[in-house]
Amino acid sequence: MIWRSDTRRSTKKSTASPSSGWRIRTSSSGGGHKAHREVSDEIVERVHKRVLAGMGLIVLHSGHFSKIFKKLMGTTCNLKWREADEKERLWVVSPGHPIAEGIGEYIELEQEEMYGESFEIPAPDELVFVSWFEGGEVFRSGCTYTRGQGKIFYFRPGHETYPTYYNEEIRKVIRNAVHWAAPTGRPAPLFGNRKPLEPLKSRQEA
Amino acid sequence: MIWRSDTRRSTKKSTASPSSGWRIRTSSSGGGHKAHREVSDEIVERVHKRVLAGMGLIVLHSGHFSKIFKKLMGTTCNLKWREADEKERLWVVSPGHPIAEGIGEYIELEQEEMYGESFEIPAPDELVFVSWFEGGEVFRSGCTYTRGQGKIFYFRPGHETYPTYYNEEIRKVIRNAVHWAAPTGRPAPLFGNRKPLEPLKSRQEA
Amino acid sequence: MIWRSDTRRSTKKSTASPSSGWRIRTSSSGGGHKAHREVSDEIVERVHKRVLAGMGLIVLHSGHFSKIFKKLMGTTCNLKWREADEKERLWVVSPGHPIAEGIGEYIELEQEEMYGESFEIPAPDELVFVSWFEGGEVFRSGCTYTRGQGKIFYFRPGHETYPTYYNEEIRKVIRNAVHWAAPTGRPAPLFGNRKPLEPLKSRQEA
Amino acid sequence: MIWRSDTRRSTKKSTASPSSGWRIRTSSSGGGHKAHREVSDEIVERVHKRVLAGMGLIVLHSGHFSKIFKKLMGTTCNLKWREADEKERLWVVSPGHPIAEGIGEYIELEQEEMYGESFEIPAPDELVFVSWFEGGEVFRSGCTYTRGQGKIFYFRPGHETYPTYYNEEIRKVIRNAVHWAAPTGRPAPLFGNRKPLEPLKSRQEA
Repeated sequence: MIWRSDTRRSTKKSTASPSSGWRIRTSSSGGGHKAHREVSDEIVERVHKRVLAGMGLIVLHSGHFSKIFKKLMGTTCNLKWREADEKERLWVVSPGHPIAEGIGEYIELEQEEMYGESFEIPAPDELVFVSWFEGGEVFRSGCTYTRGQGKIFYFRPGHETYPTYYNEEIRKVIRNAVHWAAPTGRPAPLFGNRKPLEPLKSRQEA
Repeated sequence: MIWRSDTRRSTKKSTASPSSGWRIRTSSSGGGHKAHREVSDEIVERVHKRVLAGMGLIVLHSGHFSKIFKKLMGTTCNLKWREADEKERLWVVSPGHPIAEGIGEYIELEQEEMYGESFEIPAPDELVFVSWFEGGEVFRSGCTYTRGQGKIFYFRPGHETYPTYYNEEIRKVIRNAVHWAAPTGRPAPLFGNRKPLEPLKSRQEA
Repeated sequence: MIWRSDTRRSTKKSTASPSSGWRIRTSSSGGGHKAHREVSDEIVERVHKRVLAGMGLIVLHSGHFSKIFKKLMGTTCNLKWREADEKERLWVVSPGHPIAEGIGEYIELEQEEMYGESFEIPAPDELVFVSWFEGGEVFRSGCTYTRGQGKIFYFRPGHETYPTYYNEEIRKVIRNAVHWAAPTGRPAPLFGNRKPLEPLKSRQEA
Repeated sequence: MIWRSDTRRSTKKSTASPSSGWRIRTSSSGGGHKAHREVSDEIVERVHKRVLAGMGLIVLHSGHFSKIFKKLMGTTCNLKWREADEKERLWVVSPGHPIAEGIGEYIELEQEEMYGESFEIPAPDELVFVSWFEGGEVFRSGCTYTRGQGKIFYFRPGHETYPTYYNEEIRKVIRNAVHWAAPTGRPAPLFGNRKPLEPLKSRQEA
């Protein structure tokens, strides 16, 4: 599932892409944060269960404030931000990571919204991109997590007033992430009360 | 704050220890899981905020199922378990970690409840102990996390029918963890809309 | 490259597998540790460069003491061991990891050599398997690392007197690891003295 | 031990600071990289052993190219660099880390040498600082590692033509790191052939 939120458009929809098997969830209507709140807790619970059961989740840009991302991270996911048409340069800092496949040293975006540290997230399992911003900030822009059997990738860029999602390298990163986050075929984990696999001394004595 | 739950005792209290500045929270009354549910969401929200603001949190044994731990982890924190008076041996796997100070190669407990993998938690920032159980299971028994400015240590042993908390090495680990989890003196992070620290080309042109 | 060492066989060879593109390096001749020493430093240097440039490396069993693994880890890679025909159970502790694809809760090996903690390695980037041994020890049995652009997987089992490499699940893990460790297509990193990407105040003033 | 290299001074010495118990190792004489080569392999071996046995190691600035750091990391520790009197801003990205105690959101240095990614190091156990550079680069500037029982902190700033080490916040970070890297009192690890801690079925049958 790819999760993003648009702050300017006034529709809300969930689109199934039959070819990829991926579902794009766009939550919007005049303010990303407002839209996040409109997603019901029940849906968040169901997506949370699906992620833990193995469904990949790609969280884009202001999706950092979505209920599902905050629930999975266990933190506020708060950050600094500024809309000032400034330059962003995303540096690859995990040079062998499959999400960076086909990407050069960095991706340059002429104009983007700034997101700056502190970004209140758990330390990522893998830090793939770090952004440089013209205004003086840095940001952990590409972060992977595993929660349960599910793989999660947070990717920073994508403000809706800039043509970021038409950038070929940005699209390549998202495609790479979709492949990376594909579920791993494994049985569901077993929990709860379990018999011993080996003989216990306490039982033999009894 | 040290968080544990007792399943047999019938009191519930929060004890301030003036000498240490630590507050021990014991939630109980005939079933740890029941007791967890009795902690109100409002209290969980307040503890969550305090942890992110820097308060250390030590979660013991069945505290893995407390609302606050699950909220901070973002996962179910589910696991396997068995009460069968079996031997546990906690091996140190982070030999330089301050939480293992003064501990030998392993801690042996003649009788404990078994907790087994899968343990549905995020991969710990640092894995300090791994338990071996007589019945054939292993468990990630000592796990550190940082969330916001707060440090969290989960420590597995401590079933209420065994004298685990009288074991000198177990007590040493908990003392070490309290020191390790002490808050770091830093200003609260700044979030939200921020002015640039450097001149922006877009602004100069305007 | 898959690196293992055999202590009983008396040949030493490097086998190219044309179908997979993988090269199996077996170093042997009556004692794994002796054989490791026979690998020249020059070859180790060349393999090291290739790994940093992106070549995957799978290190099996006593390959923990190979020169190349010790050089990549930066530690002694020392451990405890015992040959006593004892049971090993490898528990999956990263349930979503592609190296664990198709594997159940654990892999059981009726007879194996014991390797026990402390295992003097850097904390793995990802810990995929933890072994339980009949004799009372645990071991971090499946460890991933990235060094430069290269992915490394250390996998514990494989003593030459047991039929471990005929076990279907063990073979599956190794196949999974080969896929996981495949090089990521990226340009070689640029190092050294570099011109600024942005105008510098110090230069403008000059 | 604090390890730095000076490229302009012409002395080489090892200074014991009796009050702190720390030893400052400065390797120099007209070119940091030349000086690194002058440190004998035998001394590197001895320092390596001491670090694995628990001695803290603080590596400053061009110490990234010291033999001991490269040996501990297992990689080239190569990076980009530029001397152009440009601004550096070190952002705290691990807000609860003891090495960041007393430090605000960032440390600003008016003029420094630039070090840029890719920095060919293992992913740090903890990433404490990320630098922003005026010329458009970012850098993982504060990195912690544990190797054996020893704690290692790499800290980027400190070019010898700038007054960096007179900066109070930089000094505070180094002091914090010295405390953080203090050895943990634990017995030396046991390796090699070991008897079982539990009765083995194979032995009972025999």
